[in-house]
This record gives sequence, C-alpha cells and structure tokens, in this order.
Amino acid sequence: MVSFKKTEPGLLITDKFIAQKVEEIKRVVGNGCAITALSGGVDSSVVTVLGHKALGERLITCFVDNGLMREREPQTVISTFKRLGISVHLINAQEEFFQALAGITDPEAKREAVSQTFYKEVFGKLVKESGAKHLLQGTILTDIEETVAGIKRQHNVFEQLGIDPQETFGYKIIEPLTELRKDGVRQIGKALGLLESIYNRMPFPGPALAARVIGEVTRERIVLVRKATKILEEELSKIEAFQYMAILHQDEVTGTRGGKRAFGKQIEIRCWESKDARTATAKALPFEILKRLSERITAEIPEVVSVTYNITDKPPSTMEAV
Amino acid sequence: MVSFKKTEPGLLITDKFIAQKVEEIKRVVGNGCAITALSGGVDSSVVTVLGHKALGERLITCFVDNGLMREREPQTVISTFKRLGISVHLINAQEEFFQALAGITDPEAKREAVSQTFYKEVFGKLVKESGAKHLLQGTILTDIEETVAGIKRQHNVFEQLGIDPQETFGYKIIEPLTELRKDGVRQIGKALGLLESIYNRMPFPGPALAARVIGEVTRERIVLVRKATKILEEELSKIEAFQYMAILHQDEVTGTRGGKRAFGKQIEIRCWESKDARTATAKALPFEILKRLSERITAEIPEVVSVTYNITDKPPSTMEAV
Repeated sequence: MVSFKKTEPGLLITDKFIAQKVEEIKRVVGNGCAITALSGGVDSSVVTVLGHKALGERLITCFVDNGLMREREPQTVISTFKRLGISVHLINAQEEFFQALAGITDPEAKREAVSQTFYKEVFGKLVKESGAKHLLQGTILTDIEETVAGIKRQHNVFEQLGIDPQETFGYKIIEPLTELRKDGVRQIGKALGLLESIYNRMPFPGPALAARVIGEVTRERIVLVRKATKILEEELSKIEAFQYMAILHQDEVTGTRGGKRAFGKQIEIRCWESKDARTATAKALPFEILKRLSERITAEIPEVVSVTYNITDKPPSTMEAV
Repeated sequence: MVSFKKTEPGLLITDKFIAQKVEEIKRVVGNGCAITALSGGVDSSVVTVLGHKALGERLITCFVDNGLMREREPQTVISTFKRLGISVHLINAQEEFFQALAGITDPEAKREAVSQTFYKEVFGKLVKESGAKHLLQGTILTDIEETVAGIKRQHNVFEQLGIDPQETFGYKIIEPLTELRKDGVRQIGKALGLLESIYNRMPFPGPALAARVIGEVTRERIVLVRKATKILEEELSKIEAFQYMAILHQDEVTGTRGGKRAFGKQIEIRCWESKDARTATAKALPFEILKRLSERITAEIPEVVSVTYNITDKPPSTMEAV
C-alpha cells in the first residue's frame, strides 16, 4: 500500500491536491510503467488524467469491454480520451465475463464473479504482459467506508480487506483518491480540465449492468436492461439527479399483448437525489415523466409489460438493487 | 344454465332490474333452497341481497375463510350482513387452501388451486350437505369477456368455459349479474339499500391475497402482504381510485438494516383509475403520499427494505400482477 500525505481536513485546495498527487505518482512509479483500467466514470477518469500528467506515455490505459456496458459506452469513452490526448487500449473480454456469470443468481456471488474475472482473468494478465508494476485505481472514501461497514462488497478495495494485491496478483495498487468523496472527485475533475460530461458524470457501478439485473446475468438479459437504460438516460438527461437506473426484475407479472394475457417482464426505475451516496432520497419525478418512461419502455421493449418507480429512500434501501 | 330475459340495452332501470331478478330467482328455485358464497365484494353482496329478497331463509349464505383474506375481513363482512338481517355461516377452510397452494409458483396454477379447492373441496361439500340444488353466483359481464378473451382465467365462469356444473359438481348455477359491468352492479347495490362501504367497495380478486403474492403462497407471506395491504388501505382511504393493492415480490433486493447490508423484500404498490376495469390508468398519486406509504411499510414490516409504485397503464399491464 502506497501512503500519501493527507491534505488538510475540510480544506480541499484542488490545485494543491493535483500537484501533490502527480508528484507522488511520479515518486512511487519512478522510471517504471503504471497501468490503469479506465471505466469512463469520474473516479477512474480523474485517476487516468492524474496518471497521464505524472507519467505521460508510461501510463498504460486500458478499457475492458466486459459486455456489461451501456450502449456505445466503450466507443464513447475511448474517443473522449483520444480528444484529451490520452490513447486507450480497448480489450474485448465479453466472453470471459459472461462465462463467469453463467448460472449465478446471488448478488454477492455476481459481484465476486465480475471482480475475480476482471482482476484474475483479464486485467491481471494485461498487467503481467505490460510489465507494469504499478496499478492506478480510483477507489474513493465512500467505497472504503461502505465495505468496512459491510453494506457493500466493493470491487476495488483489496487493501482495505486485508488482501495483499502484490502477493495475490503480483502488482502494487496506487489509490490517489481515497481521501475524497464523490463531490471532491468531481471538483478535481473540473480543475483537471475534464469535460463536464465526465466530471459530472453519474455514478455507474463496477459490475456495470450486471448490477442492474436481478437473477442470472445473460447476454439476452443485458441487452434488455441496456435498452431500458438507454431510454431512461435519454428521457432524464435534463433532470437534476445524483443517479438514475433501470433494473430488470426476475419476477414476471401478468400483462396483455394484442388483447391476450401474456406473462411479461418488469423494469424498476430508480432516480436518486444525494450529495455523496451515503444517504439518498427517491426523487419526486413529475408523473408525466414517469408515464413517458413507462410508455417508451413497454412500447420499445415488447418483453416488458410493467414498469415501477422506486419510492424508498436510502436507508433502508440501497442505491443499487443488486 | 338459467337464462334471464335481457333488460333493454343501454337503459338500466334499477328497480325494474331488481324486481325482475328477484322474480326469476323465485321462479327458478321454486320451493327449494339456494346457497351462495359471500365474499363481501360488491358482486357477491348484491347477489346475496337479491337472493335473500327472493328466498328469505331459504337462501343459505356462506362465508369461506380461505386464510387469504385481509385483516378482520371475515368478521367485518359477517357483522355487516347481520345488520341487514342476513345471517352468514362462517366456514374456516384455511388449512385446505394453504395445503392446496403449497409449492405452487405459477400464477395460473395458483388461481386454479384456489378455484378447485373452493368448488371441489369446500363449497361443493357445503352445497351437498345443505341439500340446495341452486347456487347463486355474482359473475359479471367483464369476468366473461376477459375469460373469453384469454386475459384471465376467472374463478367463477364454468358455464362460459363449456363445463357443466351440474355434471361436475351436482348443482345449478344462477348468475343474475351477467348483463352488468362493475358500475351497473354498484347502481343495483345502492338501489338495494346496501351501505356505501359495500356498493362502492373496491374490487378484490377471487383468489384474494394469493393474487398479491408473486411466487409461492405461504402463511408467512400472506401475513406480510396483509400488513402492507392494511397500511395501504389506511393511507389511501380518502383517495379516489378504482382499486389499489400491495404486491409482495419474490425477488429480493439489497437494503440496509442497522447500518449493515441486508437482503430484503420488496412491496409493489398499484393504484388504478378505471371505470370498468377493461382499461385502467396508474393514478398520479402525490409524492408525499407515496413517501408516507414507503416509510410506514418499511418501518412497520422490517422484512421489507424497498417499495415501488407501478407506473404502467392497462394495457399493456393488467390490474393484478399475478
């Protein structure tokens, strides 16, 4: 574990923070290479830019396409970073992830399968092939807190769980953002000159759309929840919210198609207001927006006959359903 | 099948309808007895009063407690009819129904189990013991239409399905309400002098709370959905709506209890605006009411960590989820 000097509590001076982290990445990596996995979320984007500032071409940036992404997400992320002068390697690992997820319905086991496939099967190999001895990772304070509290098994906190990544995976993890919560990371992203579409980007879970499917994750079910996610993001793009999501349920409900009774699927929508994800409020979306969402989802995804909207705050709910 | 003369189409003269039906019940039953199963819903209540007007004490009225009723429902129905001068036999058949439902998850199979247990196991025996040769039943036009259209397998339309009840169960079914939809039945109920709490009573499905549980129906799961139903009915009693319901899902979602991650159950709420149940609109309930419902349900039923509100109209949804 690489330790950074803490910035003064309650006083986040973004330029000072950036300069300090860039300096420390330089110092820790020395003349070697580092590797990072970019997901396109604000945490990994900020880490990638910090690493690129520190190491230039000695930072190897990979985007792992696990097949669980939103529509055109790999292409969009790669072209966005290309415009920033940062080239990103696209790794197609869809087959590995779907194989690892086959037959698994337990949420924890799904997260574990995604995590293990990412670290052991896919990214571990990339790191070895690259020769990089350092891994830059966007773990933030909330990730650590929620893992310690037992609320969530995070996909990126080996250190905090007492697992030695050097022994297990053969490399060292550098985590420059562990002092920050989401709002702090966004400030750093803005100060780094990232596009607002990145630094204000909605949080998206590590297991991606696998966390938006109750029950087994299959290609077919991911296609379905991806369509619902696209509709949701189109319709809510103008809405101020911390995060919104579409969840495919395993339960089926009765509906009608062509005047006949037909069993169908249900999509649950959640839209959260939150400052830092520790607590959150189900947003009072106008009913005409909810109706429009339901109409589009049931019209454009014929398998779906019913759409619900989550009305419970966190706690006792969590933000994700899986 | 007993045939009634049709009233003039589009012209529902309630007093004439009542007099005509009472007369026809008298004529068909003759000097014998008739039996009816009262559920407390508007259809069976109207049939019971029509039958009582025609036959007096020669109508045997039974209330079958299948264990799937709402809180204090058997007691309330019986005391309400006692005040009308109609005595009702309470039949405790909880054990028969829960045994028949054990292990069944398919919605159609559940409805079938409730229906078969009611007719063959419980009510069929009551009819034989009573010596009554005529069964009065509250089938309405919408029941027949939806069964014919294949939208729903109704629990009370043997005739329309081509099954001869005399051959199968040994009695004749009299259905005085098959010309009417729900709004027509309510008019007749009002004209019969029923309490508004009966003639404007919200529709409640034949399989009762078994239709409000996705997956297997057990005593424990019925207790849970009964609690949610009570909260819902308390909170929405002042709301103008055709029907509202709480549905227990089989899918479990993550939540937090006492600061720890805890897997929990989800309740779905539906609240419908409709004239006759053929089509229906998800009501735009004020968000403060939805929040209050969620707060009470998750506070008073600790197993539940998440509550959703259905936002899809019928069609493509149906009113019930099961």
